[in-house]
Amino acid sequence: MRAVDLIRKKRDGRELSREEIQFLVDGATRDSIPEYQLSAWLMAVIWRGMSGAELAALTEAMLHSGEVIDFSDLPGAKVDKHSTGGVGDKTSLILAPVVAAAGVKVPMISGRGLGHTGGTLDKLDSIPGFNVHLSLSEFRRVLVACGCSLIGQTPEIAPADKRLYALRDVTATVESPYLICASIMSKKMAEGIDALVLDVKTGDGAFMKKQADAEYLARLMVETGTRMGKKVLALITDMEQPLGRKIGNALEVEECVAVLDGKGPEDLRELSLDLSAWMFVLAGRTKNFDEGKRLGAEMIASGRARDTFREIIRLQGGDPKVVNDTSRLPHAKNRTSVKAARAGFVTGIHCEQVGVASMLLGGGREKKEDKIDPAVGLVLEKKVGDAVAAGEALCAVHYNSDARLAESTALLGRSFEIGDQKPEHAPLIRKVIGR
Amino acid sequence: MRAVDLIRKKRDGRELSREEIQFLVDGATRDSIPEYQLSAWLMAVIWRGMSGAELAALTEAMLHSGEVIDFSDLPGAKVDKHSTGGVGDKTSLILAPVVAAAGVKVPMISGRGLGHTGGTLDKLDSIPGFNVHLSLSEFRRVLVACGCSLIGQTPEIAPADKRLYALRDVTATVESPYLICASIMSKKMAEGIDALVLDVKTGDGAFMKKQADAEYLARLMVETGTRMGKKVLALITDMEQPLGRKIGNALEVEECVAVLDGKGPEDLRELSLDLSAWMFVLAGRTKNFDEGKRLGAEMIASGRARDTFREIIRLQGGDPKVVNDTSRLPHAKNRTSVKAARAGFVTGIHCEQVGVASMLLGGGREKKEDKIDPAVGLVLEKKVGDAVAAGEALCAVHYNSDARLAESTALLGRSFEIGDQKPEHAPLIRKVIGR
Repeated sequence: MRAVDLIRKKRDGRELSREEIQFLVDGATRDSIPEYQLSAWLMAVIWRGMSGAELAALTEAMLHSGEVIDFSDLPGAKVDKHSTGGVGDKTSLILAPVVAAAGVKVPMISGRGLGHTGGTLDKLDSIPGFNVHLSLSEFRRVLVACGCSLIGQTPEIAPADKRLYALRDVTATVESPYLICASIMSKKMAEGIDALVLDVKTGDGAFMKKQADAEYLARLMVETGTRMGKKVLALITDMEQPLGRKIGNALEVEECVAVLDGKGPEDLRELSLDLSAWMFVLAGRTKNFDEGKRLGAEMIASGRARDTFREIIRLQGGDPKVVNDTSRLPHAKNRTSVKAARAGFVTGIHCEQVGVASMLLGGGREKKEDKIDPAVGLVLEKKVGDAVAAGEALCAVHYNSDARLAESTALLGRSFEIGDQKPEHAPLIRKVIGR
Repeated sequence: MRAVDLIRKKRDGRELSREEIQFLVDGATRDSIPEYQLSAWLMAVIWRGMSGAELAALTEAMLHSGEVIDFSDLPGAKVDKHSTGGVGDKTSLILAPVVAAAGVKVPMISGRGLGHTGGTLDKLDSIPGFNVHLSLSEFRRVLVACGCSLIGQTPEIAPADKRLYALRDVTATVESPYLICASIMSKKMAEGIDALVLDVKTGDGAFMKKQADAEYLARLMVETGTRMGKKVLALITDMEQPLGRKIGNALEVEECVAVLDGKGPEDLRELSLDLSAWMFVLAGRTKNFDEGKRLGAEMIASGRARDTFREIIRLQGGDPKVVNDTSRLPHAKNRTSVKAARAGFVTGIHCEQVGVASMLLGGGREKKEDKIDPAVGLVLEKKVGDAVAAGEALCAVHYNSDARLAESTALLGRSFEIGDQKPEHAPLIRKVIGR
């Protein structure tokens, strides 16, 4: 088999066989196919797409390029959630303890943020001492001890994806629903889970700006996961404005603690409980979604979810007291705010720009190598639909360095749209796919 | 400027600027852009194509990546011919001395054959002692001395093309009319010529099987060359069957000598004189095509073309006596023949298969690294339209090794179509583009 022939086949719109895809993935994993051939194939995939069979073959080959964790000896269902990423999207830190508190195991391997989006690992890193770099045996130990563990990618999991993703990143071949699906699903299927709930974001702050694209990706992932014998369901959720009110790593942990305390913003609480509810349903823990939602609310009301979060932090080397006292989290030295130029209603928030504004403060990465400042970020005083007076604060800016502060606040100033009419309320959960 | 942004731009179907294309070509030449980015860009070009402005910018950037020969100090027009390649396509060895004999300079830099097609350099190599590896100063010396020199690519000419072609070859990105055009024209425009006649082959034995594709490429090349201030014209010519009767390197030289002697097959003579005639017209040597055709015929009838060929050989270190005595060329030790299974008329010859059959004998290369046996090849006893008796020879096979002889003769046996009706005569020259 020769890579050039497989590139040609895909270039001409023909379907590759399982063996041919295996050959390419092996070549990426073992470095036996040069990167210039892999990137030409990736661009041909962007062009021509993939059949369901090709996508399943790709996902499986990438999955089996590394270790596939086996938790089948642990009792009960293992369930995870994956989000395609957004601004202020911090549900993992809420739903993981909620679901684990109710006895369903959540082995969660997460990623970092890039550009305008945040990442679960960066948020966890803002908790003093928290260690996301557990080995797979430590991962298992924490999971057994408290029902949940939250770690980063390990070298053993899907090495083919690491190679291919690094290449896609520099060859403009990221934006293919097929390649995105295979990348996500190969890593998630390696977690030893029985079921997966996907949160596919759509809107200005999401990777998929158009709902149709988000739905297409969601269907690919649900089909691929189902083909691989897992229970998979996807929510299409709104990312036209940031989720919750806080953006920035320690600020987001603070907001998660508030939700686990029965407080916090309504949208964040709603989405976290909806995702938890579906996780309960797929795990067979509750008969239906409504029961799942009640169970999640109970876990919060009883304080058990908060206790579980504290336990996760303790077991992963972090300071568990942050759950009772968020002043122990890093805080930025300086504050300023962005004010409304006129009175009216907030009719829209340019979500991606808000994410970029936080990144400019040091809350996110422009390039993969950039260091993050865990303390900085934004607190939205107004969200879409809120009334605002002229000169009233729209957004508080928490910063340590003023190197790019002006750029950030100028961007924020342009991010809020204010009109005369209160806009209609847009639903947060737009669709459920896979039911 | 970042390569990844330029790849994305082309991927999304947008036009790159002259500076952006220059950046990519510089990156290829200086090795400052990794090959995995170049190949992703090349695949995006296969997908999205190029605008006329992009193609001109690419061709010019590739041309100026190396040395551009200047023959403007030599009196008279300098003209070359380029063929897109075929089976038995040996016109260069005829028209170069014909045109030079009439006082028009022909500085010709040629390539080697690959797969089913032959290459001018391989044919010249079969002449004992002939040196195709002249330096550019020797090239000029021979050109001045006898009006023509025939050499291979030098490292100074269009190094960007060398880098990109090597990459295209292994990434299934050869088959783009834009990339083919830029590759050919960047090298030809470096030859110090004023005009260029293109022989764009179409049909089973050609690179472009469909005439529409051949015409598209021809138009691109004519437009690009004209944009660069050269006189360019293209013939679309038939490659549904081999040109002439002999295929294989020394055998083809032998057939060229026959044409220069006023003998040889009619189709080869016709095409060689047509191409010469257009070269005379573009050079301003004759007022029109008919005069050009008469001038070429005169050069052959007078023996001046043959004398010029002898002189070229002598000046490039070869044995000039082969022109009078072709037995001095290498000959294969063994002969066999492929016979007709039935009587009738030859209605078709699978031209590409015939080329492959010659390659299998050692007359061509399967891979670039393969060595060629100059002596082996085929002599077609019958061509399309010829009557044949059952058991009569269709093709003589000249071979040295029987390693792949059976494979070759079996392929030849399947290459001749015999029917009851004499087929209609198909014109050799299908179209002239650029007049």
